[in-house]
Amino acid sequence: MTAPKPITVSLLISGAFVVSMNQERQVFAPGAVAVAEDRLLAIGHRDELLARFVAPQILNYPHGLILPGLINAHTHAAMALFRGLADDLPLEDWLTAHIFPAEKNLDYDFVYWGTKLAIAEMLLSGTTTFCDMYLFADAAAQAADDTGIRAVVGEVLYDFPSPNYGPPAHGLRFSAELCRTYQEHPRVRVAIQPHAVYTCSPELLQQCGELAACHEVPLIIHLSETPKEVADCLARYGATPVAHLHRLGLLNQRLVACHAVALTPEDIKLLAEHDVGVAHCPESNMKLASGIAPVAELLQARTPVGLGTDGCASNNNLDMLQEMDTAAKLQKVRRLDPTSLPAPQALALATTGSARVLGLQRQVGALVPGLKADLIVIDLHQPHLTPVYDPYSQVVYAATGADVTTVLVDGRLLVQDRRLLAFDLEETLARARELALRVKKK
Amino acid sequence: MTAPKPITVSLLISGAFVVSMNQERQVFAPGAVAVAEDRLLAIGHRDELLARFVAPQILNYPHGLILPGLINAHTHAAMALFRGLADDLPLEDWLTAHIFPAEKNLDYDFVYWGTKLAIAEMLLSGTTTFCDMYLFADAAAQAADDTGIRAVVGEVLYDFPSPNYGPPAHGLRFSAELCRTYQEHPRVRVAIQPHAVYTCSPELLQQCGELAACHEVPLIIHLSETPKEVADCLARYGATPVAHLHRLGLLNQRLVACHAVALTPEDIKLLAEHDVGVAHCPESNMKLASGIAPVAELLQARTPVGLGTDGCASNNNLDMLQEMDTAAKLQKVRRLDPTSLPAPQALALATTGSARVLGLQRQVGALVPGLKADLIVIDLHQPHLTPVYDPYSQVVYAATGADVTTVLVDGRLLVQDRRLLAFDLEETLARARELALRVKKK
Repeated sequence: MTAPKPITVSLLISGAFVVSMNQERQVFAPGAVAVAEDRLLAIGHRDELLARFVAPQILNYPHGLILPGLINAHTHAAMALFRGLADDLPLEDWLTAHIFPAEKNLDYDFVYWGTKLAIAEMLLSGTTTFCDMYLFADAAAQAADDTGIRAVVGEVLYDFPSPNYGPPAHGLRFSAELCRTYQEHPRVRVAIQPHAVYTCSPELLQQCGELAACHEVPLIIHLSETPKEVADCLARYGATPVAHLHRLGLLNQRLVACHAVALTPEDIKLLAEHDVGVAHCPESNMKLASGIAPVAELLQARTPVGLGTDGCASNNNLDMLQEMDTAAKLQKVRRLDPTSLPAPQALALATTGSARVLGLQRQVGALVPGLKADLIVIDLHQPHLTPVYDPYSQVVYAATGADVTTVLVDGRLLVQDRRLLAFDLEETLARARELALRVKKK
Repeated sequence: MTAPKPITVSLLISGAFVVSMNQERQVFAPGAVAVAEDRLLAIGHRDELLARFVAPQILNYPHGLILPGLINAHTHAAMALFRGLADDLPLEDWLTAHIFPAEKNLDYDFVYWGTKLAIAEMLLSGTTTFCDMYLFADAAAQAADDTGIRAVVGEVLYDFPSPNYGPPAHGLRFSAELCRTYQEHPRVRVAIQPHAVYTCSPELLQQCGELAACHEVPLIIHLSETPKEVADCLARYGATPVAHLHRLGLLNQRLVACHAVALTPEDIKLLAEHDVGVAHCPESNMKLASGIAPVAELLQARTPVGLGTDGCASNNNLDMLQEMDTAAKLQKVRRLDPTSLPAPQALALATTGSARVLGLQRQVGALVPGLKADLIVIDLHQPHLTPVYDPYSQVVYAATGADVTTVLVDGRLLVQDRRLLAFDLEETLARARELALRVKKK
């Protein structure tokens, strides 16, 4: 009897640990992953996989921890160009004296290079998918297309004129056109993204809901980010922002509520009943002093929760590994309960949770055969990641984005041994500095 | 007329920014630092310093941000060997079922190598001074001596037998001996470190106070870390832990209160009146669900506040750059005020604040002529640190320890371009893994 002939795949990658985030939460130590073109073919014990498969490219990381690529469920990528422009200010002052004036001068070029700067940062810190909300979403989509990262993009819509599409009515048309342009794209998807209940009329919100339904894409909105937003909405519409959207018929599986900080128990019930996804952004909520989202209660109610960094003007980085750490610790101190949001659950927010919130759970978020080959490798051979008792703890509480050594998106190596292969990093940094000089002058 | 002849110094180092943390909070952009042996000789504009001084070694970092070395005001370094051993557990269970049993088997070797592992992590993340509280403090002192880092160490003292010094009475003798051994050491200092009011009798606390006064060294204690500690102290002694120490005559400039989470307004007043230093450990307080220290109020009352990571069993890393970020954001969300603990103040906690708390302000904490040459360089040439509008924001909100490229302690290069020059990293990692195997078996 002879051993079966090994199957040829495009890439084999092995490490000290493979943390699959599959339904059984399997961890293989040591483990390996077989990749066939853009898909995961097999995940399992290293020796078994190395016997079953051969590949023209084999990457062995004896101290590597292999994870599904991280999914940033809410950001404004191009705001990387505003990183550190205005911090530690009262919210009104921050927005009206600094961010809005800076955004008035936006153009396609600014958003394209700002998004590329953010993509460099995201890939080098283990993010393989991001959900972006910003102006000139066509530029963000182009940057995602050009660089190899996976993205959900959408043009921010509101009741006033936009430096991109002009009068409000044009925003819906622009978004519809964007949906059509990218409907067959393997990595870039489009969402409909009204800004918030305080910047969008009920009519605009309903039109957005219809457009999202028509194109079968997510409807994404900042929702109940601050107690002030809730108070204003109550005063104006006699309902919390969540109840307001409910009355408008917009609570459904397609909806993504970003932030969801200031929720009533009734809000939580409504979100859960309608399977609305929540994009939790703890560091931004802390920095802007918005409050702490009731993540433990949302998860308890079985609401899908993902994790996001928000933009660099309120974080100020896009490091999802730090964001997980903060999410876990913040929930513990909010509940005064150290068992709240344990490490595996924090990692789930950034992987399976974000995937589900964005409707991508059949594509990404776990290392499961058939899903897209989006994965990252963390290098454990470092003093702050030594020793290893528990791979989940190590990832969530000790690692940062700088520990990510290798990144695969759609089966393609975009980062290897901390070198960005996807595009020209030096050109991007140089363009970012030039554009920042323009911001400083204004 | 000819230019004055340049003065020869031991090292010149220049960067895009020098953030001095001196009293005027001067920032030089570009800037340089002249080092003469173990001391800072001059800090100023790059071109001016490069004209005034010559040196056998000149380090130029065109994208470097030069800062005073960071000072970790409270840690248990050797607990790096327990990193990730037991997380997300109720506090009682964590301590009694995991940490205390693991600590029963401690020996000199374990603490020596655990501390060295922590020192590797600290140096590579920009910490140049740490204040340690642990068992076998002689081993920690030896590790600091051997590696070139600056340290304040102390044997943890309590009412029960210790695996190091045996019966409680021997602890004071051991500490006194340690004080004598290191009294002339250029980098290693000793402190008297009773564990807490719930583990030390009033008699032991007073004896510790006398010993600290006699040797003119700090008296360091975990104080008011949790609401439970306060409730228990009230029940037992009829006073909060702060008031209890006040009654015992122990509130003075020498005292360092670690954590100081659960404080009454009266406690804050007492701490401020007696110039007691506080070591704030936000990440540990979050992870153990202890609460949030009233740092804004302590600073308002003019209490000296420093920053610490606590040990790796409750953090789980020793990254002071992440700790600053968390400190700033946590205070904002606690106060629901985004102006609370702005970036320069967060950086002050980790530099001048920690120095003052530990009584080292005439040695370290700022880049000021005459102080010890302890400095670090952060590499800004990275996507997550581009562009730069504000160096304080960049350091506090965007950087992590992994961005530290070069570290100088006492005028000696211990890390250069992220290579640890101070000692053998591979040997330390190998020993740490061996010792962790022993922990796992038990």
